[in-house]
Amino acid sequence: MPCRCGIDTHSHVVPEHFPRYLGSAVPAEWPQMAAGPDACHRNVMIAGRNYRTVSDKCWSTTRRLADLPAMGLELQAISPMPELLSYWMPAEAARQLTRWLNGQIAAMVDESGGRLVGLGAVPLQDLDLAIAGLRELMAQPGFAGVEIGSNVNGRAIGAPEFDPFFEACEALGAAVFVHALRPAGMDRLVGHAQLQQVLAYPGDVGLAAASVITGGLIARRPGLRIAFSHGGGTLASLLPRLQQGWHVFPALRETIATAPAEQARQLFYDTLVFDDATLRHLAAAFGDTQLMVGTDYPFNFHDATPVARIEGTGFAADAIERLVHGNARRFLARAPSPTESTA
Amino acid sequence: MPCRCGIDTHSHVVPEHFPRYLGSAVPAEWPQMAAGPDACHRNVMIAGRNYRTVSDKCWSTTRRLADLPAMGLELQAISPMPELLSYWMPAEAARQLTRWLNGQIAAMVDESGGRLVGLGAVPLQDLDLAIAGLRELMAQPGFAGVEIGSNVNGRAIGAPEFDPFFEACEALGAAVFVHALRPAGMDRLVGHAQLQQVLAYPGDVGLAAASVITGGLIARRPGLRIAFSHGGGTLASLLPRLQQGWHVFPALRETIATAPAEQARQLFYDTLVFDDATLRHLAAAFGDTQLMVGTDYPFNFHDATPVARIEGTGFAADAIERLVHGNARRFLARAPSPTESTA
Repeated sequence: MPCRCGIDTHSHVVPEHFPRYLGSAVPAEWPQMAAGPDACHRNVMIAGRNYRTVSDKCWSTTRRLADLPAMGLELQAISPMPELLSYWMPAEAARQLTRWLNGQIAAMVDESGGRLVGLGAVPLQDLDLAIAGLRELMAQPGFAGVEIGSNVNGRAIGAPEFDPFFEACEALGAAVFVHALRPAGMDRLVGHAQLQQVLAYPGDVGLAAASVITGGLIARRPGLRIAFSHGGGTLASLLPRLQQGWHVFPALRETIATAPAEQARQLFYDTLVFDDATLRHLAAAFGDTQLMVGTDYPFNFHDATPVARIEGTGFAADAIERLVHGNARRFLARAPSPTESTA
Repeated sequence: MPCRCGIDTHSHVVPEHFPRYLGSAVPAEWPQMAAGPDACHRNVMIAGRNYRTVSDKCWSTTRRLADLPAMGLELQAISPMPELLSYWMPAEAARQLTRWLNGQIAAMVDESGGRLVGLGAVPLQDLDLAIAGLRELMAQPGFAGVEIGSNVNGRAIGAPEFDPFFEACEALGAAVFVHALRPAGMDRLVGHAQLQQVLAYPGDVGLAAASVITGGLIARRPGLRIAFSHGGGTLASLLPRLQQGWHVFPALRETIATAPAEQARQLFYDTLVFDDATLRHLAAAFGDTQLMVGTDYPFNFHDATPVARIEGTGFAADAIERLVHGNARRFLARAPSPTESTA
C-alpha cells in the first residue's frame, strides 16, 4: 500500500454547467454543457462541437474525494480543464468565464474539508484584467495560485510582455502551474486527433519552460514558484543542448545570464511521465527537490497510481518524501498537516 | 586516448561554390557563395542574406580528414547542410541543386581514400523526382544513402504520402538520415535567433520520429534503415507518453499496430546530445544497438570528442563498440575494415 500522504498538483475541474454569457454577442467558443452518453457523463460543447465527454468526477467533490485514498493522495490541487482558460475570447468574456470557474473551484475547496486546494484562472490575454483577476483570486480562501497555459495565443509564457503578471504572482505569493494548451507542432502529427495531447502537449510545455529559461524570468522574479505539467514536457530532452548552446554561442551567453541547467533546477515539474526511467532521469536533471505528483485526474489519460509509482522507482526515502509531498508543499505554500508535523 | 575506430553518421558539407541556376527565373532562395571574414571562411548567401558563415572544412577533404583522428573517427558520413535540401524551391530547381551537392559529395568521398561516405540529397517535394534522384545516387559509388529533412514543407516525414519514397529506399538499400529542418515551434522561442537550432531543431526531429512511429512506416518497410539526428531530438521525452496513450486510447491502438516503445527500438539515432546522463537514458530507451556517433562537424555547434564521450559514459565494452562503430556499420551497410575483421 502506498502512503496516503501524497499531494497531487495536477488535476482538473470542469463545472457541472456553464453560465449564460452576460452580454449581447456570445463568443463563438463560449462553452455549454450537454447531456452525455450516460448519467455520469456530460459533453462539453465548444463552438458547436463536443470538445470532450467528461465524467462527473470533474465537478463532484464527493466522488473526487472518494478516489483520493487509493491514489495515495491526502491533498489535491484542482485547476480548470485547460481549454477553458479562454485566452482566445474577448478578454471581458474570458473574465466572466474564469470568474465562474474560480467560483466553482472555491466551492469545491470549501466542501472538501481541507483535502482540495485551488489553482484558478485569469484572462491572460489582457494583463490588467489578469492581474486584477489574480488579486481577486488570492484574496479568497482556498486558492494557492493559478493555472496558466504554456502559451497565450501563440506567445510562450516566458516572453517579456508577461512579466508584469509574474511580478504580481511573486508579490502575492501565487503558485503558477503551467499546463499545455493549443500546442505548436500540430501540423507535424500523423494519425488520430488524440495525438494532440499525447505528442504536441509535451512539446509545447517544453518550449514554455525553455522560454522561461531563455527569457530570464526566475532571475527577475526569484521568489516566483512556477511548475510545468507533464514532467516539463520535452524540456529534459532540450536542456542539455540548450546548456551546450549557451557555452558555444556568445549571443546566448550574452542574453541568458544564468546557465540554463542551473535555472532548470529552480523550476518545479510534475511527475506525470508514466515511466520509471524517465522519472529518475528528470530527478537527476532537475533535482529531486523540484518534482511533485501530478495525475491529470479525472481525465481518461491520468495516472491512477502516482504515489505507488514514486515509491517503486528506487529513490531514497528522503527523496520519496520530497516527491510525494514535500516539494508540493513548498510549491503550494502549504504547511504540513498536524499529523505530519508531529510525525 | 579514444580509439580511432569511430564512425560519424552526422557531419555536413557545403560546397566551395554554387553553380549558376540553369533556367530563366532564378529561384529566390538559390544559394550563392560570398567572401567571408577571412581566407578560411565563406558566407552562404540565401535570398540576399548571409544564411551562415562556414569554414573551409565544409568542402576541403584534406582539412576534414586531418581532424578525424583527434575525434576518434575512422569513417565519416557526409551530408549537405540541411538548408540546402531546398524543398521549398520549384522541384526542377531543387533537382539541379541537389545534383550539384551530390557531385561535390561524390568527389570528396572519392578523394578520401575510403574515410568518407556520402549521404546525398533528393528533391522530396516531388516524389517522382526524388525517387529518380535516389536511383541516380545509389548507382554511383560512394553513397550509403540520403539525408532528408524532418519535414517537407511542413509535413512530417512519417506522413503516408512519402511512402513510395521509403519503398524505394528500402528496395535500393539506401540508409535514410533524418535531420531537423525549418522546424515547428519557432513562434514559441524567446530570445536570440540561434535558439532555432538549439531548441526548435530537436522538437522537429522528435515529431518526425514520432510520425514515423504513429504512421507505421517500419511495419510497412521492415528493411528500411532510418536514423534521426540529435539523439532523436525530443522523442525520448515523448515516447513514454505515446506508449501510455497507446494503451489508454482505443483509437491509437486501432491505428498503430505495434507498440510505440517497440517501434522506437527499430529506428537509429545519433549520439549528439552533449550529456552523459541523456546518452545513457537514450541507450536504455532506444537500445544500445540503435545509437551511433553523430557530431555536426564542422559547424560551430559540433561535438569535438564524440568517441571519448561514449567511452567515458560507463557503458559495457560491447555496448561501446556498438555505439562507436558497430551500429553505424549496420546503418550504413558498411563491412568492417580488414584490420577490424581480424581483431
